[in-house]
This record gives sequence, C-alpha cells and structure tokens, in this order.
Amino acid sequence: MQDKLNLMIPGPTPVPENVLRCMSKHPIGHRSGEFQAIVKKTTEQLKWLHQTRSDVLTITGSGTAAMEAGIVNTLSKGDKVLCGDNGKFGERWVKVSKAYGLNVKVIKGEWGKPLHPNQFKKLLEEDTNKEIKAVILTHSETSTGVLNDLQTISKYVKNHGKAITIADCVTSLGACNIPMDEWGIDVIASGSQKGYMIPPGLSFVAMGERAWEANSHSDLPKFYLDLKQYLKTVNNDSNPFTPAINLYFALEASLSMMQTEGLNNIFKRHTRHQIATQAGMKGMGLPLFAEENHGSPAITAVMPKNIDAEIIRKSIKDDFDILLAGGQDHLKGKIFRIGHLGFVNDRDIISVVGALESTLHNMGKLQSPIGQGISATIAVLNDQQ
Amino acid sequence: MQDKLNLMIPGPTPVPENVLRCMSKHPIGHRSGEFQAIVKKTTEQLKWLHQTRSDVLTITGSGTAAMEAGIVNTLSKGDKVLCGDNGKFGERWVKVSKAYGLNVKVIKGEWGKPLHPNQFKKLLEEDTNKEIKAVILTHSETSTGVLNDLQTISKYVKNHGKAITIADCVTSLGACNIPMDEWGIDVIASGSQKGYMIPPGLSFVAMGERAWEANSHSDLPKFYLDLKQYLKTVNNDSNPFTPAINLYFALEASLSMMQTEGLNNIFKRHTRHQIATQAGMKGMGLPLFAEENHGSPAITAVMPKNIDAEIIRKSIKDDFDILLAGGQDHLKGKIFRIGHLGFVNDRDIISVVGALESTLHNMGKLQSPIGQGISATIAVLNDQQ
Repeated sequence: MQDKLNLMIPGPTPVPENVLRCMSKHPIGHRSGEFQAIVKKTTEQLKWLHQTRSDVLTITGSGTAAMEAGIVNTLSKGDKVLCGDNGKFGERWVKVSKAYGLNVKVIKGEWGKPLHPNQFKKLLEEDTNKEIKAVILTHSETSTGVLNDLQTISKYVKNHGKAITIADCVTSLGACNIPMDEWGIDVIASGSQKGYMIPPGLSFVAMGERAWEANSHSDLPKFYLDLKQYLKTVNNDSNPFTPAINLYFALEASLSMMQTEGLNNIFKRHTRHQIATQAGMKGMGLPLFAEENHGSPAITAVMPKNIDAEIIRKSIKDDFDILLAGGQDHLKGKIFRIGHLGFVNDRDIISVVGALESTLHNMGKLQSPIGQGISATIAVLNDQQ
Repeated sequence: MQDKLNLMIPGPTPVPENVLRCMSKHPIGHRSGEFQAIVKKTTEQLKWLHQTRSDVLTITGSGTAAMEAGIVNTLSKGDKVLCGDNGKFGERWVKVSKAYGLNVKVIKGEWGKPLHPNQFKKLLEEDTNKEIKAVILTHSETSTGVLNDLQTISKYVKNHGKAITIADCVTSLGACNIPMDEWGIDVIASGSQKGYMIPPGLSFVAMGERAWEANSHSDLPKFYLDLKQYLKTVNNDSNPFTPAINLYFALEASLSMMQTEGLNNIFKRHTRHQIATQAGMKGMGLPLFAEENHGSPAITAVMPKNIDAEIIRKSIKDDFDILLAGGQDHLKGKIFRIGHLGFVNDRDIISVVGALESTLHNMGKLQSPIGQGISATIAVLNDQQ
C-alpha cells in the first residue's frame, strides 16, 4: 500500500512524526545565533547519549565518514593496528585502514560469531614494544546481527597502555549501554539513521582525551574530516563547513525525545524487543544466525532452512509493507535481518513476527503449528513489561 | 517576526514549499528499487544541469567535501598545481591542496578583484615539461561576490594539454551558464544549499573523461571520498554509503522545478536580479565591492562608507526579517553581501533594496534622496522583463 511501508531494516530506521516535521522547516543561517543555540544544545545531548565528558563532534556524512574520521585523526602512516573483522563492517575498517597505509593485523571472526576477546588480549600483551597504536572494531556488526564484546576488548586495550580503541557503534549506540568514559573507549563513531531515529546524513565522532593525545602526532592527510577544525568550531557552537541544517533540527527533537524516555528505558526496550523477536523466530522454528547470547539488541538475523530468504523478504514487503534487510555478500538469499532499532514499539515486533508466521504458513514452509511464533513473542512482551 | 525570515545569504538559500515537503517524507530503504529510481532520475537531471555527458556523482557532505573529492581523486602527492586565490574559498583550496602534500603555486588575486587569466596562461605556457597537473579555482568567489573567468582559464588549461581544471562552482552552478563539456572543464564541484534550492547536506562532483584518466594514477589516500566507489555504484543507481535520503527526495523535486523553468530562463533571472540589485545599490550611493563587470550573478557585495556593515545587517534582520551575509575575515564589518541565488523572485529584490534604503534613511546615512535606490531597481526589472 502506498506510503504505508514500515522500515525494519538496520537503518534507515523509522522516524517519529515530530522529527519528520522538523525536517521540513525552512533552513536558517548556519552562522546565526539561532543555529548556534541548536549546536550547543545537541552537543550537550550527544554527550549525555555517549555517557561522556569528552567531545562529541557532528559531521555531515555517513557512519563510514565518522569511522574514517576516527582513524585518520588519531593514526599515522605505517602505524600498526589490530582490526576486528567478523562481518561486512569489520571488513570495511580493514579497507579504510589499508587505504591510509596502516599496518593492519586483521583479527578474523566467522560471520555470525563474535570476535574472541582473548585474541586481542594475547596480541596486546605480547606487544611489549608498544607498537600497536589502535584496536579498531565494530560493536554491533550490522551484517550478521552479532554484538561484539566491546567492554572486554577495550579493557584489554587500556591495559596495554599505549593503544587506543576506535569503535564503530553505528547500530549499537542508543540501543544498548555504552558508557564511553566508564569503559574507557577512546573513539566512538555513530550515524543518524540508526538509534538516533532521524534520517541519514549526519554522523558523530566522540573523541576521548587519549584520542586527542594521539591526534597531536597523527600525520594522515585530512581536511573535510579534520576533527581539530570541528573541535575549534564546536567550542563556538558552530561547524567548520556548512552542516545539514535540517538534520540538526531533527537531531535536537529526537535527542529530546530520547532524554524524556531515559537511557535505561531505551536500553530495556531494545533488549525486550530483541528477546521477543528471538523467541518468535524460535517458536516458529526459524534458526537464528548469530551465535546464542551474542545477538545485537538492534538487529536479529534469521537463516531459514529450505527456502530462499529473499523470497520471504519480498513476500513480507508485498503483503505487509514491512521492509526487512537481506543478507550481504555470501549471505544473500541465505539470511534476512529484522531491524528493531530506534523508534520501535511492541506493535512493530508483534506485526513482523505475525507477518512472518503468516507468510511461511502460506508457503507451506512453517515448521510448527501456526501461532507458536507469535505466542512466544507475546509471552516475552507480557513477562517483561 | 517568528518564522518569517527570508534568507538572502549565499547559502543556505530559500527552499520552495514543495521541496520542503519532500524533506519530511519518511525515509525509504536506500537499497530499494524505489530509491534506485530516484538516483537514476537525479543523476540524469544533474547531467542536464552541468550540460555534460560525463558522470556527476552525489556525496553526502558539504561543498568542501566535493572540492576535496575532486582534488584527492585526480592528483598524487607532490603534484604541482596552480591554485587561484582571490577570496576565502580560493584560500580554502590552497589549504586542502597543502593538507594532501601537493606542490602548490598560489596565483593571488586581491579580494574584490577577479583572478587574471593571463597569469595562468603565462605559467601554463612556460611549463614545457608539463609538470603542472591541475589548475584549481573558484568560479563565483562567495566571500567577495566576484565571478572569475572560468571559461578563459579553462581554455588555457586545455591548451596546456596535460593539466586538468578543477572548479569550485558551488555558488555559480544554477546561477549562470557553465557548459562543462563545451568549455572543457574536467571537475566541477557544487553544493545543494545554493542554486539547487534545497537544504545543505548533499554535494556534487562532475568528473570528465580527463579527470578519470588522471584518477587512474592518483595516489592520494581516500575512502569516503573515493569517487571510484561512487562511480561503480551510481552505474547501478545506488550509493557506496548510506546517503541523505530525504535530501535526495528534495533534490528530485527541485531539479524538476529547474527543468520546468529551463536553464536559459534560470540564468536570465539571475543576471536580471544581479543587475537590478547593483542598480539599487548605486542608486542609493552604496559602493559595490566587486570590481565593475566582474560581479557574480549569485551575490552582490556592498561596502558602505562611514558605517559598520554589521550594524546595517543587524537592522535589516531585526526590522525586515531579511538575513544578509556579513564580511569574512578582514572584511568583517566592512562589507555585507546580498544573496540573490536560487529560489529568488522580483519581490525579494525589491524588498531587500527597499529595506536597505529605509534603514539607511532612518540612520541618517542615505547618500541620496530616498527612493533613488528602489527606482533604479524597478527600472531594471521593468526594462528586462
């Protein structure tokens, strides 16, 4: 049905109506006092979201731009880095690091399985000459729905004493607890079209004290992504380059909604929806792709047996106007991914589980009596009120 | 008055209501067929606007990102480039070029005066070893309201045979005639919040055949701004990274409006408004800052005598809800700048001239009998119907 699509992909995520309305306001001058007030407010709100006293800088660009900014602002050519790679986005940070001539040691993980913190621990402990300058990893691996153990890995990095942690929290920030200062994460990158509940176009880089210290001797070339320029201007409630003004209007509105809901409530909501979704899949006999207990609160990947995942996905879109994500690269046709990130309520969860159950039933592919999936989902939602 | 502000700065420019409405549509999946149709359509529209058969690529970022993309995708470390610098943005391209280790020969021009094409001609002709790889310049210098002679300079670059022309057309594209193919410009960078009539957040890089040839041996590091990735995906009507989807909705709508108006009508409208604005300033005895016959059709800079330009600017904003731009750097307080770029009609021109005349009169600073400015403006508007 026209204009009835519900986005249950891991970004862009659904946008609240009052945030959408902000998008259609007439732009104001980006050097005006009115706009400075918005930069000042959103910068404070971003610090709240990151649970940090460090600087959080806003870039007009995608999450990849934010990650690249984290890398090129803290490292130098030839620097040795460890790069976790257990999915499409881990792969991407390897590519970015290599594009800038870093000496990359890739810590591989199987797609669908988490990175092993001990592999990082071992290499960091063995590095007595302190050659490792950074550990780069994805927290919530969007391509597989796996949540890597950022807390433990960043602890090992801290113990190393020299290296910094650069974390892609694009689909985890605003979905689960990431206390930047408490965990000692040095760089966090994120993007607007995810937990932030606004359309794509803005991305964010939080830079801790040790990241700025690393910045002081970083020699990688940069200009648009030169975070020192962003720091200098954000201290005057401004931007170095013309920012996406309307997305700033949206950002202010969505972060205000998030503050009203409260961080703990937001995290609890995501976990509850994650468990309810997982229960629904198990109830109808659909295997989860991510290893047990390592699923992301933002996204659940499902690997149906004996049926092309793309056929399910197309059916769900055509019949129920729910957009699910497909598998990427070698997982195309093998998995589909349900996004439950951002502006998602119980109705969304019930509807996607019900729609899947109906679709499989109609295809004659349901492994269990109809109703088992949705019952399991409802049970979780009722239990965890 | 609240929500009554008229933007007459050189960006962001006013946005038509139907384009603003597109901004508040719910995002759709950026890998969906629906979005591919938009990428396909806007790519064709962008080629129309650039009067080119070359590739025009869309980046989520500011005009600076587009210029940086043009530079880092065509050049290599140590490459000799000529960089025109007669204003804030010329200065910026010198900084970008130096940040990437290029060997920059700066061709200086006084602020308010155009670059001298003969300076480029001489250096290009003397370069018999063909060491100059690129000529980088700003077409419409936003900081001063000067239009540089891109056509002549790019002709000299073509005669050189090796170097390419990288042009910042951020405030000239959509305001005056820039036939990319006919003039042989190799790279054109532009931004959405200007002649495009949409809010900031998208920028565009047109890459001609010789630019791609230069790209094949460019060694500057890049990832988010790696145009090869954009080319590969745009050929599938897609983007390498999550784009600012809502700005794409707006882009499609505004380019359709522009196509309905027609390129020649758009250019004629801008020239007519430029002449009418200039006439108004002269009529009320306000000196123009840009050298005679070298003004930009996008912006008129004015240098009032015996009065701080910032005081005029504040008055015009407070009393008439018209936002003018101030002077940058050493010109702060010395000039103000009237943007007549993009979605501007005769009413806007009449109102800004009238408001200025009223303001100066009330301040006792009007150099001529009241009404001379607006009469001159009206005469031009009537003459050039």
